[in-house]
Amino acid sequence: MTERVQEILSWYRGENPGVLTNLYRILMHGRLAGTGKLVILPVDQGFEHGPGRSFAPNPPGYDPDYHFQLAIDAGLNAYAAPLGFLEAGAAKYAGQIPLILKLNNHDILQDEADPLGAQTASVDDALRLGCVGIGYTIYPGTAERRLQYEQLRDLTLEAKAAGLLVVVWSYPRGSGLSKEGETALDVAGYAAHLAAQLGAHLIKVKPPTAHLEVPAAKKVYEAQQVPRETLAERVRHVVQCAFNGKRIVIFSGGAMREDDAAILDEIRGIHAGGGFGSIIGRNAFQRPKEAALRLLDQIINIYKTPVR
Amino acid sequence: MTERVQEILSWYRGENPGVLTNLYRILMHGRLAGTGKLVILPVDQGFEHGPGRSFAPNPPGYDPDYHFQLAIDAGLNAYAAPLGFLEAGAAKYAGQIPLILKLNNHDILQDEADPLGAQTASVDDALRLGCVGIGYTIYPGTAERRLQYEQLRDLTLEAKAAGLLVVVWSYPRGSGLSKEGETALDVAGYAAHLAAQLGAHLIKVKPPTAHLEVPAAKKVYEAQQVPRETLAERVRHVVQCAFNGKRIVIFSGGAMREDDAAILDEIRGIHAGGGFGSIIGRNAFQRPKEAALRLLDQIINIYKTPVR
Amino acid sequence: MTERVQEILSWYRGENPGVLTNLYRILMHGRLAGTGKLVILPVDQGFEHGPGRSFAPNPPGYDPDYHFQLAIDAGLNAYAAPLGFLEAGAAKYAGQIPLILKLNNHDILQDEADPLGAQTASVDDALRLGCVGIGYTIYPGTAERRLQYEQLRDLTLEAKAAGLLVVVWSYPRGSGLSKEGETALDVAGYAAHLAAQLGAHLIKVKPPTAHLEVPAAKKVYEAQQVPRETLAERVRHVVQCAFNGKRIVIFSGGAMREDDAAILDEIRGIHAGGGFGSIIGRNAFQRPKEAALRLLDQIINIYKTPVR
Amino acid sequence: MTERVQEILSWYRGENPGVLTNLYRILMHGRLAGTGKLVILPVDQGFEHGPGRSFAPNPPGYDPDYHFQLAIDAGLNAYAAPLGFLEAGAAKYAGQIPLILKLNNHDILQDEADPLGAQTASVDDALRLGCVGIGYTIYPGTAERRLQYEQLRDLTLEAKAAGLLVVVWSYPRGSGLSKEGETALDVAGYAAHLAAQLGAHLIKVKPPTAHLEVPAAKKVYEAQQVPRETLAERVRHVVQCAFNGKRIVIFSGGAMREDDAAILDEIRGIHAGGGFGSIIGRNAFQRPKEAALRLLDQIINIYKTPVR
Amino acid sequence: MTERVQEILSWYRGENPGVLTNLYRILMHGRLAGTGKLVILPVDQGFEHGPGRSFAPNPPGYDPDYHFQLAIDAGLNAYAAPLGFLEAGAAKYAGQIPLILKLNNHDILQDEADPLGAQTASVDDALRLGCVGIGYTIYPGTAERRLQYEQLRDLTLEAKAAGLLVVVWSYPRGSGLSKEGETALDVAGYAAHLAAQLGAHLIKVKPPTAHLEVPAAKKVYEAQQVPRETLAERVRHVVQCAFNGKRIVIFSGGAMREDDAAILDEIRGIHAGGGFGSIIGRNAFQRPKEAALRLLDQIINIYKTPVR
Repeated sequence: MTERVQEILSWYRGENPGVLTNLYRILMHGRLAGTGKLVILPVDQGFEHGPGRSFAPNPPGYDPDYHFQLAIDAGLNAYAAPLGFLEAGAAKYAGQIPLILKLNNHDILQDEADPLGAQTASVDDALRLGCVGIGYTIYPGTAERRLQYEQLRDLTLEAKAAGLLVVVWSYPRGSGLSKEGETALDVAGYAAHLAAQLGAHLIKVKPPTAHLEVPAAKKVYEAQQVPRETLAERVRHVVQCAFNGKRIVIFSGGAMREDDAAILDEIRGIHAGGGFGSIIGRNAFQRPKEAALRLLDQIINIYKTPVR
Repeated sequence: MTERVQEILSWYRGENPGVLTNLYRILMHGRLAGTGKLVILPVDQGFEHGPGRSFAPNPPGYDPDYHFQLAIDAGLNAYAAPLGFLEAGAAKYAGQIPLILKLNNHDILQDEADPLGAQTASVDDALRLGCVGIGYTIYPGTAERRLQYEQLRDLTLEAKAAGLLVVVWSYPRGSGLSKEGETALDVAGYAAHLAAQLGAHLIKVKPPTAHLEVPAAKKVYEAQQVPRETLAERVRHVVQCAFNGKRIVIFSGGAMREDDAAILDEIRGIHAGGGFGSIIGRNAFQRPKEAALRLLDQIINIYKTPVR
Repeated sequence: MTERVQEILSWYRGENPGVLTNLYRILMHGRLAGTGKLVILPVDQGFEHGPGRSFAPNPPGYDPDYHFQLAIDAGLNAYAAPLGFLEAGAAKYAGQIPLILKLNNHDILQDEADPLGAQTASVDDALRLGCVGIGYTIYPGTAERRLQYEQLRDLTLEAKAAGLLVVVWSYPRGSGLSKEGETALDVAGYAAHLAAQLGAHLIKVKPPTAHLEVPAAKKVYEAQQVPRETLAERVRHVVQCAFNGKRIVIFSGGAMREDDAAILDEIRGIHAGGGFGSIIGRNAFQRPKEAALRLLDQIINIYKTPVR
Repeated sequence: MTERVQEILSWYRGENPGVLTNLYRILMHGRLAGTGKLVILPVDQGFEHGPGRSFAPNPPGYDPDYHFQLAIDAGLNAYAAPLGFLEAGAAKYAGQIPLILKLNNHDILQDEADPLGAQTASVDDALRLGCVGIGYTIYPGTAERRLQYEQLRDLTLEAKAAGLLVVVWSYPRGSGLSKEGETALDVAGYAAHLAAQLGAHLIKVKPPTAHLEVPAAKKVYEAQQVPRETLAERVRHVVQCAFNGKRIVIFSGGAMREDDAAILDEIRGIHAGGGFGSIIGRNAFQRPKEAALRLLDQIINIYKTPVR
Repeated sequence: MTERVQEILSWYRGENPGVLTNLYRILMHGRLAGTGKLVILPVDQGFEHGPGRSFAPNPPGYDPDYHFQLAIDAGLNAYAAPLGFLEAGAAKYAGQIPLILKLNNHDILQDEADPLGAQTASVDDALRLGCVGIGYTIYPGTAERRLQYEQLRDLTLEAKAAGLLVVVWSYPRGSGLSKEGETALDVAGYAAHLAAQLGAHLIKVKPPTAHLEVPAAKKVYEAQQVPRETLAERVRHVVQCAFNGKRIVIFSGGAMREDDAAILDEIRGIHAGGGFGSIIGRNAFQRPKEAALRLLDQIINIYKTPVR
């Protein structure tokens, strides 16, 4: 165990040893083991966006085995997916890669201003599948977010009692926000903070832009001159919003992009800003495996480089 | 046990031996035993469409015994129905045909853009009736699909613990979709994928058309040139969407049609595309028994023919 | 389904269709399918007598797979064993042979006049392992039989609600009986009747001798001249004691014997007396597999031969 | 993952992926990772024999931290202890060593011919402490073993559903056995078999002597000439009794001995006989740490050496 | 918060913050606040010995209010009593003195060699009465101690989940021990260790004598020359037996004694040996309040004096 991992665990000392053990497991797994940084493979896009749209660009991705093997071969910290994808490979790959069971999911077959999602698996499923934790998505900004927060509350209480990690995808959306506002700096910081307040151990947000959405916040950010020019500055702010860096915040890789240089620049910004890592889905599984491994290798190397 | 059945069981090795046993039972029953193909008789139309509309064309179908006997005489793999129909014949025909208890159903006495259905039987009913599994219908695309997914989640966890199969009817509908969109290729693939992610062992969808519904999907399908001209191509895509063919997907026979040749052509397309079989309701029980047996015999013969 | 199986099922028409289905399954499985006769392989001797004593004579029997394969290859109706042996092979052989989970077992590491046994598995185990039924041993004649009857009562209620068969090994023993009395005709009949009264669907007893144990019974048997000279006569009486033949009674094969002719004579006696079959453990797995298959083939052939 | 570990996991394929994951974790942890061999540190002697008697020979052992650190420093596969000892260090050492919570324990403040023990912790404790499994001791040969088997049954069902391993200490004792009989070859094999039949994943027994205890067994062992001269031969027999080697059997190190050469000879015998490893308590923690690490290093080196 | 209290809390870091909070509360209450030492008033003698025998020597003690007020006036850390006594004053004195609800009690209206006690209140009672913890008495050495350990296990799990302290009175007794053995050094150490292994946060034992009871222990104590001449040495050993001093062990004051000097000498011995304090019942409430306050003041002063 490294000093950095020890430091991270110290932020969670109110949790039971089971939670700490599972936190240790993902922090000490894969090529970033011990650095306190994480790269996680999430594959819920089949459910969230549809399978054709998600996997046609790289058809081996239709196969659940493919993603287990990709996460293992790339030396990632964990693999996160809905029930079906995990059930299909959890026995075959038992123990080889820490698993996070995404407990709620949302499809896009209704065009909804305020998406809600459904709880599609349970804490008992996470235990029988040998997962290190559960995942849950909240949509701050939507009309019915209350139902999400309350469902998350119950699952969090149950998961923690069983020693499982709680990973929260916090994605601002809905009729309460402008499209630009979904990734606004104040909103991204707000989203990270909400997840932390709801008891999340790991928080996943989108990389923030310099936009400020909520007028009352905008006024303060400008008065206090919160730095927001570079991605590193903005990431630093979001991390600060998550309990001054005492909760693990990782950033999503977003839609598939051809331009690797741009992706790697973004990773450098997250790393420089003190982000704890990335959760890279489409940019991993929507390109041929060779290319995916190459890109993930470069991303991991960035996170392994100490920040000056 | 044939090699093909062994291969199919290997996709489900995360499940307990009880589930594997019931999977074996339906794969090894009837005239298609051992082929890895299935033809199932579903009779829930009395509940779903009303009895007169369903059974007046062939009045013996009012009698629950009729359908048990039809499935047995035709050498099918299983018979699926709501609680009452199964209760009425399960003792008399005990053991002669694997049973699937449809746990939710929906009547049409309200004209709803977004149907929801009700859970009308329980896992305990399935056990006391000697069923191999439970059935459940989801309507992706409806406003309240969330409630269906969550009810299915609880039933799935309970059914699997008791060693029962989970069969999901995945029928896109609702205000989120155009009428044409309900059977669009992208939507059909999505529907199959959703059911698989929800933990289904067997998935029933409608044969897909070449239409593409969701704009974001359409773009990808066209860019990737996903083949969709023939039914075989479209079936192949839907099967691919269900975990690259690692979940059993069967196709519904649809409304009663006079034209047997058209029906058989469709079966040939499903078979050629790697579909795992058919679930034939109205085209079986809405014609005289003799004619039904003749048609089912022809369908079974198609599925028994190896694909070149 | 044969007429004979239909007749047998008719005796159990108070049971739910799940129970009838599982009864059908074992009556329609293997080489005796449809005859109403059963040959079952039980392997609980490792627990009951110790593994070395049980398996050293034919060492492949140490391996749990061996017994599954033996029961399958011999075309038996079912295989019965304690939890560990079933868990070890239930996934690999899923569906290929009906399984009976023996829920209680007793080791001989205490020399007890009144053995009691322990419940070592549960109805939930039977469901998750895909069994057709549960097995339970009672020792009529022992001091604490009350505890057995009451544990069986609870398990029976639970098993039947879940559609499982209840198979009772009824072995008179204990300080209440002479050694000879354990297989006395009156006691054997009593044992079969007790099991039937406790709700058993299948009853396993030892072949009875002509001895009469209980004085009050002896008086009546002699007064009424109950025939008991031949094994067939005695078997007929035991079957009569089990609800006039309306409960399935099968007879145990007893200790390993070299003399196949004697074994086959006994089988002929059981068959002639209207016994429903045999449960052959040590005489099956304590000889080389070839010899076991040969003997089981002969036994099955006897049971297939119509009695004049 | 090595081929050997893969082979071992294949014996447990009826279990859920959670169980397989935890089996993988202990088989892939420490210096023996991947070999299929295990060395485990158990420290329940404070409870079982009293703290002074257990720890006075090496007083640092009074401190719960000491044992966590010893297991970690020696590179063992796991550490097993009662509730209090695990609670005292599970947060501090979270994740650094797989933990097994011993759920029952027995003190010696009553001199009992037939000890029984008490359940002193629960499956829920094992989850909140982040354990890979539960431990439970049975005393075959005692008058009340029935109560132990039944308590174990409930805990096993609950533990497996939560994905936890079940480790059974099977120690024949009690008024039914002579002192010599407690480690007799037939009894040791019986003990291993009973644990396996009760559903144990890992079984711990004492190294067997050449003595034969039960007359009926003795007769068979002698007739079949079961080899029992060397420890390797006897270990091979015990492993065979545990489902022909398809359940993991490890051997206890016994009382503290000065003579390291004798200890290492015993380990060589266990290894040569196909034993899966050792569980070394008193010979590890009752000597100074340096000496303990030296001895454990030698033991591990023996297990790492391929058997010719 | 003092450094000492911080150190003590660090030994319990596997516990949830609720437990730590209640531990903090009793360690920071009264005149010994912050010292890490505790003096607690227990009044369960009315139940355990009968009210007349307990309270006639100082009749105000019949009144439940008396004891609350005594504990408050003396500046003690906590007051422990059975349900009725706490219910009678908990509202009136709410918040003024930390309360411990004794969950089991035993009356002496049967003369039993092996007393067992009854659970006379619940964790829910402790919560509704605002207690900091529960108390429970075990009698190591009694025939049925198993039932006590198992009841304590359930209560401990429940209490800890609710953030309550678990205080265990560990009093060796019963047919397994000589009268002298009840306070023998080895037995007292064993008793403290058992309570710690059962998950107790605070342990109460009797001051040990130099006697050694269990032969196997005696041999080791003598060989290892465990010091046991002075009370301080013996207390030091008992504290060592409680996880090397990482569990709080306090010592009972025993029967009412006239000789204050002897009492204070005993306290000095406990203090010098590293004991964490005293639980003084009869020597507090069986003398006039003035005298009691004077004695308790002297005791507290001893515990406040730093040990050289």
